[in-house]
Amino acid sequence: MEKDSYRLEAFSDGVFSVAITLLVLDLKVPILEPAGSGRLLAALWEEWPTYAAFCLTFASVLVMWINHHGIFKEVRKTSNALFLSNGLLLLLVTTTPFTTALVTRYYRTPAASAAAAVYCGSFVLISVAYNWLWSAASACCRTTEHLRRVTRNYRIGFPIYCVATAAAFVHPALALGICLGLWVFWLYTMREA
Amino acid sequence: MEKDSYRLEAFSDGVFSVAITLLVLDLKVPILEPAGSGRLLAALWEEWPTYAAFCLTFASVLVMWINHHGIFKEVRKTSNALFLSNGLLLLLVTTTPFTTALVTRYYRTPAASAAAAVYCGSFVLISVAYNWLWSAASACCRTTEHLRRVTRNYRIGFPIYCVATAAAFVHPALALGICLGLWVFWLYTMREA
Amino acid sequence: MEKDSYRLEAFSDGVFSVAITLLVLDLKVPILEPAGSGRLLAALWEEWPTYAAFCLTFASVLVMWINHHGIFKEVRKTSNALFLSNGLLLLLVTTTPFTTALVTRYYRTPAASAAAAVYCGSFVLISVAYNWLWSAASACCRTTEHLRRVTRNYRIGFPIYCVATAAAFVHPALALGICLGLWVFWLYTMREA
Amino acid sequence: MEKDSYRLEAFSDGVFSVAITLLVLDLKVPILEPAGSGRLLAALWEEWPTYAAFCLTFASVLVMWINHHGIFKEVRKTSNALFLSNGLLLLLVTTTPFTTALVTRYYRTPAASAAAAVYCGSFVLISVAYNWLWSAASACCRTTEHLRRVTRNYRIGFPIYCVATAAAFVHPALALGICLGLWVFWLYTMREA
Repeated sequence: MEKDSYRLEAFSDGVFSVAITLLVLDLKVPILEPAGSGRLLAALWEEWPTYAAFCLTFASVLVMWINHHGIFKEVRKTSNALFLSNGLLLLLVTTTPFTTALVTRYYRTPAASAAAAVYCGSFVLISVAYNWLWSAASACCRTTEHLRRVTRNYRIGFPIYCVATAAAFVHPALALGICLGLWVFWLYTMREA
Repeated sequence: MEKDSYRLEAFSDGVFSVAITLLVLDLKVPILEPAGSGRLLAALWEEWPTYAAFCLTFASVLVMWINHHGIFKEVRKTSNALFLSNGLLLLLVTTTPFTTALVTRYYRTPAASAAAAVYCGSFVLISVAYNWLWSAASACCRTTEHLRRVTRNYRIGFPIYCVATAAAFVHPALALGICLGLWVFWLYTMREA
Repeated sequence: MEKDSYRLEAFSDGVFSVAITLLVLDLKVPILEPAGSGRLLAALWEEWPTYAAFCLTFASVLVMWINHHGIFKEVRKTSNALFLSNGLLLLLVTTTPFTTALVTRYYRTPAASAAAAVYCGSFVLISVAYNWLWSAASACCRTTEHLRRVTRNYRIGFPIYCVATAAAFVHPALALGICLGLWVFWLYTMREA
Repeated sequence: MEKDSYRLEAFSDGVFSVAITLLVLDLKVPILEPAGSGRLLAALWEEWPTYAAFCLTFASVLVMWINHHGIFKEVRKTSNALFLSNGLLLLLVTTTPFTTALVTRYYRTPAASAAAAVYCGSFVLISVAYNWLWSAASACCRTTEHLRRVTRNYRIGFPIYCVATAAAFVHPALALGICLGLWVFWLYTMREA
């Protein structure tokens, strides 16, 4: 039987894969005049927050995609709520290159708090979209044990992202660390059946 | 039986998902010297028309994709007219990041009317392409009740977009509001079988 | 039976759809200070060669994709030659946003000849890649009547593109017109079975 | 039987195809004032390292994709290790437009050594990710003769890329030549069953 959700998944995969690849546009080649091998390596090294932010966000989009995959594995029929919640999620996913660029640009300035708060705040919205998507998915498909466990693990996202957003105003690095911890936790717990 | 339209859908999904994700390139990180958390939040807040335009256009492309999905669900065979009308539609879809950037750049200037008119005008062309696509699709597949309803709802697009384009010269915000209203109407009526 | 060429097609569709969508990055929002609706419309009108080049190249990539689709429809097995010739074709397809930008930038300057020659020249290379792809495809699949006709129509591409490239040095608009004529011919003749 | 790895492949194909197409953003239209056909052709000719780097990296991503295709052909079930190793590989693949731009920008400056070393070094990391992916794939699927041969050929990647990275500090062109040689070797040996 053909899955009705087939093209929904294909479109979502497309958006996820373009968004995750556009992150590379944040990596800028340093402009040095005059150039020298030592200076170039130093200039690249200097840019470490950019690379860290790139890896951090790449991991987050990857975790989101794996979750998306996990949810849709059980979905056979589509509904309006599924289209809308999935649309909201994709809208938020496509903004990650922007919020990442914001953190990269301002991480070593006095505006680090605001940048980290916006970054974490976008994940608060993403967790809201995920919860909506989950309830839409469970309304139109059988809720397997797998889906229930995914949900249980993912439900902690909303409160923890809220804490991270608040923490950003006190200590930006801590906020980003909380997000990273969450993604590592998800990567290790969500797929193992 | 394999659908002949399979790759046509895959290619269209690709174009839709790249175009919708490229919208994020319109979101620019503000450059502040010196930077401060308060000033950064203020500068981001100042950019609200950019985020509004981003969400508006994202919603429109999503609606177009859902419609596209609804039309092709019934298509099994392809024809030249289907390839051409679909090609014209995709051409117009890929220009949405450009028309969105135009509205974003000029919304708070005296050129808002022209920018909004071009934005709405591009949707007039899109509705023409959709009508062509619909007639091409209905010529090579059985017209189900579903498809007929989709068409009936979509046919109002052309006159309403024309009104919005005219309205843009008088009141740009009204023109964009008309478009938004149309998309919300479609989101809520087109898929529910 | 699963087609061995499945992922080859999926990857090619991805490259075609990204390349065709990246063309929109050549459409730049004009920067006007001070802005006015009349001036903005005039500035957009002024940019007509950009839009013409965008439509022209979009049509060419679309024709190439339709051809690609037509060739792979018959392919069930893959070979090294198929992977390589397809790879060369995709490499050339991804350069179309660049050659288009070149024509756009220089069309109304004394360098129009060189820009048009490079543009047409890239299609000479593309027709070589297509001929290679065709022979690779016909070596590993049955050559149907359909494929033979596609080939016959496409074989005129190489000499005509060579003529267009030469014509570019005398009359750039003529060269682009020859290309356009060729694509219209293909659009109308290649798919009709 | 549906392949569990289906969407993993679709997502990977998406990332590969976007990354390979984004390489074109490194090709910049030269800005000449005043413009002339002779000067434009000269300016384009002057940019040959850019085109060489574009072709080189395009070939490398293509080889990686063909390998990826070869590995996943045998995979039916997914595992956490497969998701993680594939994620790491995709992260590294998306950075190729950046490392390519680095080589392009600095190839004819005294910083060529550092740029070439970073370029080759990124392939050292990629070969590590590939080895991890291979072991994850062979843990969850039968290791066919085909897969074993692919592995044997690919295992030489790590030491040779290390040599190329070291060579970059002495002779940048030699380092890039070693990489190119490796890709040509793989293109000709890995798929022929």
